[in-house]
Amino acid sequence: MTAAVPTSTRGGARPEAARREAVRARVRAAGLDGLLVTDLVNVRYLTGFTGSNGALLLAATDDAGSRFGTDGRYTTRAAAEVPDLPAVVERATALALASRASALGIRRLGFESDAVTVDAHAALAGAAEGATLERAPGLVAQLRVVKDDTEIEALRRACTLADTALTDLLDAGGVRAGRTEREIALDLEFRMRALGADGPSFDSIVAAGPNSAIPHHAPTDAALRPGDLLKLDFGALVDGYHSDMTRTVVLGRAADWQRELYALVQGAQAAGCAALGAGVPAAKVDAASREPITAAGRGAEFLHGLGHGVGLQIHEAPALSASSKDVLEAGMVVTVEPGVYLAGRGGVRIEDALVVPGSGPAEGLTGFTKDLVEVG
Amino acid sequence: MTAAVPTSTRGGARPEAARREAVRARVRAAGLDGLLVTDLVNVRYLTGFTGSNGALLLAATDDAGSRFGTDGRYTTRAAAEVPDLPAVVERATALALASRASALGIRRLGFESDAVTVDAHAALAGAAEGATLERAPGLVAQLRVVKDDTEIEALRRACTLADTALTDLLDAGGVRAGRTEREIALDLEFRMRALGADGPSFDSIVAAGPNSAIPHHAPTDAALRPGDLLKLDFGALVDGYHSDMTRTVVLGRAADWQRELYALVQGAQAAGCAALGAGVPAAKVDAASREPITAAGRGAEFLHGLGHGVGLQIHEAPALSASSKDVLEAGMVVTVEPGVYLAGRGGVRIEDALVVPGSGPAEGLTGFTKDLVEVG
Repeated sequence: MTAAVPTSTRGGARPEAARREAVRARVRAAGLDGLLVTDLVNVRYLTGFTGSNGALLLAATDDAGSRFGTDGRYTTRAAAEVPDLPAVVERATALALASRASALGIRRLGFESDAVTVDAHAALAGAAEGATLERAPGLVAQLRVVKDDTEIEALRRACTLADTALTDLLDAGGVRAGRTEREIALDLEFRMRALGADGPSFDSIVAAGPNSAIPHHAPTDAALRPGDLLKLDFGALVDGYHSDMTRTVVLGRAADWQRELYALVQGAQAAGCAALGAGVPAAKVDAASREPITAAGRGAEFLHGLGHGVGLQIHEAPALSASSKDVLEAGMVVTVEPGVYLAGRGGVRIEDALVVPGSGPAEGLTGFTKDLVEVG
Repeated sequence: MTAAVPTSTRGGARPEAARREAVRARVRAAGLDGLLVTDLVNVRYLTGFTGSNGALLLAATDDAGSRFGTDGRYTTRAAAEVPDLPAVVERATALALASRASALGIRRLGFESDAVTVDAHAALAGAAEGATLERAPGLVAQLRVVKDDTEIEALRRACTLADTALTDLLDAGGVRAGRTEREIALDLEFRMRALGADGPSFDSIVAAGPNSAIPHHAPTDAALRPGDLLKLDFGALVDGYHSDMTRTVVLGRAADWQRELYALVQGAQAAGCAALGAGVPAAKVDAASREPITAAGRGAEFLHGLGHGVGLQIHEAPALSASSKDVLEAGMVVTVEPGVYLAGRGGVRIEDALVVPGSGPAEGLTGFTKDLVEVG
């Protein structure tokens, strides 16, 4: 039968090879002979490997001097997914790679000090005979903030799939009084899986009535009631990439306060999207979206930052918040998700994922309408 | 509406309070004044907190001198779930707690060196003015290997739920030729969620025909065919606890080689279960199960260790393998999962979770039959 995971594009260059070259430039610039990559997300990014135990010894020179490591459970998968790197199959994967560094001519070996634990570092230092371990945090993460075409395509598919699931849920009458938050979350997640997602990209937030005023609310067995605001924050996982969207709908006809609250957040969200651009400080985007909410006297009820990068992780750099020092670059994919939460009454959040443009307006990956939807 | 998560048992002692006392004894024995707990699983174990950002500064003295930390997104949840500890609400949660250690009389502050990264440690050391950070790996994990009654009850519910989902799947005709591995995985996971699970406890393995010979196989769009072995390795997540079971069935009437292979693994699995007991070296249990497989000339096709502890994590101590140094204790919960894999043809694995007994036979938490099931 067919393999679990798409193998490399036959005849075409693998994006992973280009990414390794880009990391190599950073490794050399840091004065290192190699980098030991143990963070699984970074390993996937640089090799395509999807298993739960893998590591990469990346030589600053080339792939021939590099090694991919995994254990015996993944021999088959590694051969399919990482055909272009020499493999080492051992249970203590990272230690096995560290011990080979010196023989591969790697003396100054960088390690991911932002991912490796204090105890693991001590073990690696012991194993890496003939090489010295040096802190090298963020070398891969810095590269991952700007997405390549393969990544944007995967994010586009993940976002479109989540859009479709929500549309189908509403069309099927899945959102109605009497159903519970948990039932709706399950329905939505089932639809995403049936549409081809590998799973939800995080624990879905389905929050009805007063619960919608809790930014991070886990679905309960509480039943929806007519007139409730219903906040749905969810996403699909496709080929390792996470979509992330929030929509807030009303069960039945919206009350005036709900309509007003919605319009306020909708305007703020549009302002945030419009502010996205290469070279723009992330804090400025946060400010652009926050300004109308503050002007309406609701600044204290916008309880979180505006958004975050999204990709192989659901939360990654850059941070879109007042205190962020990040500056946007073309090709970053970020969420814009202002919310206003009236404790005990209800809250509205609207969230899209967008590609930061080199010029002109940002491409929105989320397609579902942002106008107020009154259900039923 | 009701809160997402059960609050403390009103009037009854919370198990978390007893666990904190048990950790305190270990903290004092290590000559420390306190322990900074940042591993989220350990934080949940000791406080009941289920959010994605929480930490505990555990004073060796008492709860009053301890602090629970989280950020503003979780104020509501923390008040419901952790009513018995003074709270600190700050974004940089661990740093905020470390900075308070000295004022709380904590000079020698242990940290989880097996969970804290090298960079995070450097930041904590800078924040913990007036206190010194000392490596203290495994203090909570050592306690977690033996489950208390609350935990065994949660694991029992998780295992029973997974049993029911598999029974329902088969009764509904969900396993049949023409369906794909992915469809069956989704059906099974949907059933677990509908029965009340918070999710699958890991990515389900559904492997048909030759794929069943791959120990860790991700479900594909390959359709099942008559005569296939079908291996299902899956579990339910209930109140933070993970069930884990494997069953291998045959589509239609089993061929002689399948029947023989199944009987071999079934006997090996029974031998492993029978070997469980307090004071028994884990390596001996592995050996007891492996022996009949080796005697049949299939030792090289049993590609992995026999099992592992299971609880708040899907894989935790003890390890049941040939190289394990662990010794079993009453109240540990472990899997026993021998498998034999004939490359290109098919494999059989049978897995239960069981409670290690003080004396007598082990309690099996998995109830689904271990006899060969021929489907359809």
